[in-house]
Amino acid sequence: MTGTVKSAAAIGGGVIGGGWIARFLLNGFDVRVFDPHPQAERLVAEVVGNAERAYRRLTLAPLPEKGRLSFVSSIEEAVRDADYIQESVPERLDLKLKVYAEIERHAKPDALIGSSTSGFKPSELIEGFGTPQRLFVAHPFNPVYLLPVVEIVPGQTTAENLARAQAFLSAIGMKALVVRKEIDAHIADRLLEAVWREGLWLVHDGVATTEEIDDVIRFGFGLRWAQMGLFETYRIAGGEAGMRHFISQFGPALKWPWTKLMDVPELTDELIDTIASQSDAQSGHHGIRDLERIRDDNLVAIMQALKANNWGAGALLKDYETGLYARAHGRDGRAEIDPSKPLPLHADRVREDWVDYNGHMTESRYLQVLGDATDAFLHLIGMDKDYLASGRSLYTVETHIRHLREARMGAPLHVVTRLLGFDEKRVRLLHEIRAGADGELLATGEHMLLHVDTGKSASAPMDPILSAKLGELWKHQRHLQTPAYAGKPVREIMMDPANS
Amino acid sequence: MTGTVKSAAAIGGGVIGGGWIARFLLNGFDVRVFDPHPQAERLVAEVVGNAERAYRRLTLAPLPEKGRLSFVSSIEEAVRDADYIQESVPERLDLKLKVYAEIERHAKPDALIGSSTSGFKPSELIEGFGTPQRLFVAHPFNPVYLLPVVEIVPGQTTAENLARAQAFLSAIGMKALVVRKEIDAHIADRLLEAVWREGLWLVHDGVATTEEIDDVIRFGFGLRWAQMGLFETYRIAGGEAGMRHFISQFGPALKWPWTKLMDVPELTDELIDTIASQSDAQSGHHGIRDLERIRDDNLVAIMQALKANNWGAGALLKDYETGLYARAHGRDGRAEIDPSKPLPLHADRVREDWVDYNGHMTESRYLQVLGDATDAFLHLIGMDKDYLASGRSLYTVETHIRHLREARMGAPLHVVTRLLGFDEKRVRLLHEIRAGADGELLATGEHMLLHVDTGKSASAPMDPILSAKLGELWKHQRHLQTPAYAGKPVREIMMDPANS
Repeated sequence: MTGTVKSAAAIGGGVIGGGWIARFLLNGFDVRVFDPHPQAERLVAEVVGNAERAYRRLTLAPLPEKGRLSFVSSIEEAVRDADYIQESVPERLDLKLKVYAEIERHAKPDALIGSSTSGFKPSELIEGFGTPQRLFVAHPFNPVYLLPVVEIVPGQTTAENLARAQAFLSAIGMKALVVRKEIDAHIADRLLEAVWREGLWLVHDGVATTEEIDDVIRFGFGLRWAQMGLFETYRIAGGEAGMRHFISQFGPALKWPWTKLMDVPELTDELIDTIASQSDAQSGHHGIRDLERIRDDNLVAIMQALKANNWGAGALLKDYETGLYARAHGRDGRAEIDPSKPLPLHADRVREDWVDYNGHMTESRYLQVLGDATDAFLHLIGMDKDYLASGRSLYTVETHIRHLREARMGAPLHVVTRLLGFDEKRVRLLHEIRAGADGELLATGEHMLLHVDTGKSASAPMDPILSAKLGELWKHQRHLQTPAYAGKPVREIMMDPANS
Repeated sequence: MTGTVKSAAAIGGGVIGGGWIARFLLNGFDVRVFDPHPQAERLVAEVVGNAERAYRRLTLAPLPEKGRLSFVSSIEEAVRDADYIQESVPERLDLKLKVYAEIERHAKPDALIGSSTSGFKPSELIEGFGTPQRLFVAHPFNPVYLLPVVEIVPGQTTAENLARAQAFLSAIGMKALVVRKEIDAHIADRLLEAVWREGLWLVHDGVATTEEIDDVIRFGFGLRWAQMGLFETYRIAGGEAGMRHFISQFGPALKWPWTKLMDVPELTDELIDTIASQSDAQSGHHGIRDLERIRDDNLVAIMQALKANNWGAGALLKDYETGLYARAHGRDGRAEIDPSKPLPLHADRVREDWVDYNGHMTESRYLQVLGDATDAFLHLIGMDKDYLASGRSLYTVETHIRHLREARMGAPLHVVTRLLGFDEKRVRLLHEIRAGADGELLATGEHMLLHVDTGKSASAPMDPILSAKLGELWKHQRHLQTPAYAGKPVREIMMDPANS
């Protein structure tokens, strides 16, 4: 391959262009934007703001440092140094062809060029274009910074350039789906168009309002399609007899007159009024910015739910995070840890779903953070997957938490860990959670861990490898002063006789 | 109204009928089933099994006692005592008309009759039917026990009967959507049919495989539609200019030839082979039973994710659970609590997502259960929403957990709570978590709570109402023996000099 993508250009910064820009930036790529719209900077800033908010909820994996965003006054300036160029200008072929000619004049010869077009085929886009081997359709879906799929239609793109584009799009968390043959509207919009047309007829004919149609979708097949598509869903419906059976059952219904033909209802003022006022009644109590946030929160929640099941968009998110961790570690390595100080092994942040009705981090999340810090400590002393697979583990048998300060949503949580002692079966740890590396002390956790044979569910001496590492660490940690609060019980309350 | 629904009948127990049966049973309704299929009992049992598994994951609200399921040998026996009758026989009008005549002959005169038909309109169904005021289409979606939406097409149904049907369907967790005009295929299937036809063409023309089409959906607009439908999504796409702007932008594209006409690809052996083998390649490594469970787990996870955001199918689930709690309390009242014993205020179960790689309940979930028990105690002494709204609360400032036994997925968790002492600002509690009411002791939690002025984030004396309730309780609880482990610190480890 000629090279990996290092910087990006965006020609057009509307809703779609802005979504691309946000995705590039949050994945660490510098972006130069050309968009003559007088409000382009504000509009892009709004999309990027939404994206940043969504990513904070989407993942805790180490995103690379945000790329630099600059607005420039010509296509030339935008594309000159770019390795990847995304065109998202309005859907007019003459305009697009002009833009490509200008890009070709100034871009590096091996820069990749993706078009956000939903309406044009590569064969139309490359008319008169000198280097069609590097131009392709890269059609995304709104919100581009969250929805993973992007349809790639290659046209005359070489296999090498296609592979470079796929590698880049995967690295920024996308599912790059190569369309096998060019076709008007690619794949998704053909499906969407059919539904949209049918929906318009239902409103036109007074069968359902916009809200009722939306409800049929979001309380029904929309839930199915967030995780399996059309064919896999119907495969299940076919039951043990499978797909063949399903088609033979459903096939005849296709001949029934269930769809208006290709006809589109005339978009009269009356129909537009009907749709607009129904839509107002349905959603008008939310502003557009509210709706965007509701949508993004729901998309994030759905993707995280699917991540827990390692399925579909959730499995993709997991892969993406694995890549982020790998890159962060490759880039930074691990900071050297000074064994003679409390060990900074774990850090986190109060996530959105960790707060209670008071707006503070919920009680049980403290123990989750402490547990994660314990896991980090165990990893340090060599308790890894292989050790666990050998049927041995260290279980927490006792915990003493002191809550000192409230932690609010988004607050950084830095944990330092002291080894208070150990013997052949036990490890005693003390964690302190602070608001940032040098922040206030929020909570402390004192823990007793017991080494067990997990098969027998009985305590057992630990492997000499672990003991040796503990011993090594103890040489340094034993000189640390144990805080006065450690080893103390929960205080008793001397009862006021008036209450008793 | 003539009466609420108390028992149900199902005529037909296939995938759809079985899904209805499961929903009825799990919501406490007895169901009599007539289905002449020789394997009907096995098939229904499989669907009910899936549904029970899904409901265990879906909700912890108190489901009523499961209804009784019986298979009978005639329509007469099935419908005789039923208040609600659901017909889910094959899509043949002559068969359906015969079934309705038989139902009418034997059912109670005010029994409601819903048809699962996707293909017929009420005007067709009531031909020759004597009591059309109680027959309607109630068209659900697979899996019926999970997907909430049901399309109700009333035909000549009276408003009273429609209201009775809606009340019943809401009580069993459904979103009953009344279709305003009868139309072939109702609403959802018109949309689905359009997508299906378009999908078949894409496979037929070699543009995409079944898997690629599914991926475009589940990594793309399927994620959108699980939470907002067509119109609300496009309202956002329209941006600040709104729906009108969106239509004016998107409108012209409707005229483009993006869809095959009404034509359906001929279902030749070749096309059926293509689809079946692509579907095998895509999903064949999962058995149908596996796919059903994956689907159900994903649907449950998505609905729970949306519940956290109080949106769409998640908000509906929340309402449903609120109803379950209200009914459980209305039916049973609260068991009288003996204040002279440890107080059984909270019970739970180790949920699917609470276990760690060892298959045991994760550390932090113990504190979650203990925290819920503390909340139940606070509720008992009068700390309710109004109290919190007054800017005062009791915060946990210290916690000592002892882990004694592992708890596995699904295990019941019963907590009993002792009041160990209190003063004007503090409350000291001791919880014991047992595996069931008289089960083994799994863990203990000792907690110090501090009463705070939440505005000032400073400790403050509690309201006399709380103190009085604590005093009342203390009269009884002070006589309880405090277990020897309470008030003790986490043990120290005497270091083996060999390790130091």
